[in-house]
Amino acid sequence: MKRIAIAIAGLGTVGSGVIHQLHRQRDLLKKQGLELDIVGVSARNREKAAQAFPFLDPLPWWENAAEMARACPCDVVVELVGGEEGIAKEIAEAALSTGKELISANKALLAKHFDALQKLSQANACAIRFEGAVAGGIPIIKALTEGLAINNVRRVEGILNGTCNYILTAMTSEGRAYQDVLEEAQALGYAEADPTTDVEGHDTAHKLALLARLLFGWNKPISKMSVKGIADIQAIDITVAQQLGYIIKLIGVGSMTNNRLDVEVAPMMIADTNPLAKVDGVLNAVHVTTEMAGTYTLIGPGAGAEPTASAVIADIIDAALSAPSRNFFPARQEAEDASEEDGHSRIKKWYLRLEVVDKPGVLAVVTALLRDNQISVDSVLQKGQSADDKVSLVMVTHPTRFSQVKELKNSLDRLDFVLRPTQLMPIIENE
Amino acid sequence: MKRIAIAIAGLGTVGSGVIHQLHRQRDLLKKQGLELDIVGVSARNREKAAQAFPFLDPLPWWENAAEMARACPCDVVVELVGGEEGIAKEIAEAALSTGKELISANKALLAKHFDALQKLSQANACAIRFEGAVAGGIPIIKALTEGLAINNVRRVEGILNGTCNYILTAMTSEGRAYQDVLEEAQALGYAEADPTTDVEGHDTAHKLALLARLLFGWNKPISKMSVKGIADIQAIDITVAQQLGYIIKLIGVGSMTNNRLDVEVAPMMIADTNPLAKVDGVLNAVHVTTEMAGTYTLIGPGAGAEPTASAVIADIIDAALSAPSRNFFPARQEAEDASEEDGHSRIKKWYLRLEVVDKPGVLAVVTALLRDNQISVDSVLQKGQSADDKVSLVMVTHPTRFSQVKELKNSLDRLDFVLRPTQLMPIIENE
Repeated sequence: MKRIAIAIAGLGTVGSGVIHQLHRQRDLLKKQGLELDIVGVSARNREKAAQAFPFLDPLPWWENAAEMARACPCDVVVELVGGEEGIAKEIAEAALSTGKELISANKALLAKHFDALQKLSQANACAIRFEGAVAGGIPIIKALTEGLAINNVRRVEGILNGTCNYILTAMTSEGRAYQDVLEEAQALGYAEADPTTDVEGHDTAHKLALLARLLFGWNKPISKMSVKGIADIQAIDITVAQQLGYIIKLIGVGSMTNNRLDVEVAPMMIADTNPLAKVDGVLNAVHVTTEMAGTYTLIGPGAGAEPTASAVIADIIDAALSAPSRNFFPARQEAEDASEEDGHSRIKKWYLRLEVVDKPGVLAVVTALLRDNQISVDSVLQKGQSADDKVSLVMVTHPTRFSQVKELKNSLDRLDFVLRPTQLMPIIENE
Repeated sequence: MKRIAIAIAGLGTVGSGVIHQLHRQRDLLKKQGLELDIVGVSARNREKAAQAFPFLDPLPWWENAAEMARACPCDVVVELVGGEEGIAKEIAEAALSTGKELISANKALLAKHFDALQKLSQANACAIRFEGAVAGGIPIIKALTEGLAINNVRRVEGILNGTCNYILTAMTSEGRAYQDVLEEAQALGYAEADPTTDVEGHDTAHKLALLARLLFGWNKPISKMSVKGIADIQAIDITVAQQLGYIIKLIGVGSMTNNRLDVEVAPMMIADTNPLAKVDGVLNAVHVTTEMAGTYTLIGPGAGAEPTASAVIADIIDAALSAPSRNFFPARQEAEDASEEDGHSRIKKWYLRLEVVDKPGVLAVVTALLRDNQISVDSVLQKGQSADDKVSLVMVTHPTRFSQVKELKNSLDRLDFVLRPTQLMPIIENE
């Protein structure tokens, strides 16, 4: 019988899910030779915890979670508090510096402090496991670091935030406006009261940072990543995209081309034959392209109590079985970092939408700018009724470098008949 | 530095891929603290091996692979010979009985002898690993037994044979006939000269047997599985399916309902919104439905040298790191086995296509039979020109038990105006 003593900090939906699942499956786990015992819990409300887990009697309660991480006689500390600093960081440091394994679903903390925590864990010979931190229940960390370990991954693309994907899916299928869908998502509990972290792309960035760390050794601060959210996507962008054969998704991309690494988060237009184009609602997905062994797509629930608990428990079982932790698999690639200007370098085509005053001569000025910037276009279309003297002018470029198209956008945005910043979006064809 | 000594039996495309990848990545593996040394090889042609692997000099050659498995001083024997009996079985037994780990991509062998090999491996305390045996490069065994370990899986559906999927995809997208596409697939190397194992569904059955073993503890001989191949799918079935909003795929299904287990392989009609419907060409996919943590879909290359080698090497790395092998995770479910008559019990609707003589009164006889069997239909359509006095009569039933619809089919096939056995196919709606 393998026995492991677990302390859990944070009893929100995921923490509660972990405790309930472990309790529910305890006989099955015992039959498999595993005894996974919860010997410490810490959260905000002791009364609530006592009521929620009557089978933990007496409740092994700690008022101070960091103190628990340090002093509780356990093998593993599960950190489900959240937040990139403060108590979450204290818990992680206390656990590792006292030689306990750290299991965390906290992407913000891990994205920010990976190197420091890794050093601490190596110094104390105890693993960090974080399957729950990326793509919820999808066992993506395991798939990449163990299942596909021998492959050089050239590119990873992920739909990593269920809130954004829910909003974009509803906008696409129902033709509704961003704000309208966001409010509905908030009412349904799919979006937070303050949705900034999700809709501005930061949550996706944290998860992508972890994937890029594992796959490419990316170890920059997250502030160096190019991150754009979905708040300025308009219904017309989605409609035009569909007419052109694309679906708009918020994608985190890490891509290695000629030893140069691009890591970025942005809404992108995906060919509707791409497997990611069909990943709808709150689902997450990760698509990886290997150098020699083809492409792989993993789809599943990216959040929620049960799926994330399932990932956390997979880590607990790994810890109980002393499964080697491979998150320290060294960077498989040693890439130069592409400069911001060179970002998107592998992305071939661009979508630009200008909102312009509907008057003669506009197209002539715009096309002259295209010529001056040496950008050739695949198609130009004018959209929208001009009742209010505004029209949208949509252009899809031929393959163009980001630096060029950025320059063009800057010039366009300075024109007096351009009414708002030009919408610029990369296009991903099917591979 | 973790060092592991490997003997490889069988140097076809996968075996060669393993040796080349290990050689190509050896510096990277060393940087990760892994030395994976090939200390024995055995295959049909020594000359060819010497030429293919000049870096193995001297070539650690064994004339007899079973003798190698027994006597070669190594930690792991990789069996890539194939075949459910004979030398493959001898190799497996020799390796395990002398305390060596067995890594195999041989689904036929494992499906047939899982219990015996498992006993041998337990008696000798050495693992069997077989990531390469199911769905090629997709790390499905790891995902199910480790990543999703805590979940009760209720249902697994897989596209597990690239040859069949290639043929059905080409029939679907190009409207071509089975025989025509099969010949092309043979010319392209996607189908064997004798395609029986693939097109009759046996290969899918072997892989499904392994999945059902792991997920549900299924341990019947494969002859007890209901297995139907794709050879009698006609172009008209595919066309009608598309008109009804379905795609035909060869699916291996294991499903647990009310503690009853159905395991079967058959061409099925899948709602075109189901993630499996978009898995085209030689790709494989596995879709699992868990009791509480949602559904997961894994898509990737199901065969080929590099993808399968990637899975085999993942097993080798696991062995080198002494990662616990979980293929002996006991049956998570203890199900009664559904009888053949009760098979398909969860599948609701059925597609029937009759080829009948085009004469008055046929429909009246058929509909009377439906009434007598208490089967109500969702739709009836008549298809095809009656120039040759033959027409197809297609019916989609309301949710119906297999035993009932089978009875109906038997009655229909006895009618003198029915020209060939009625095509009967289950329909899988999107979950």
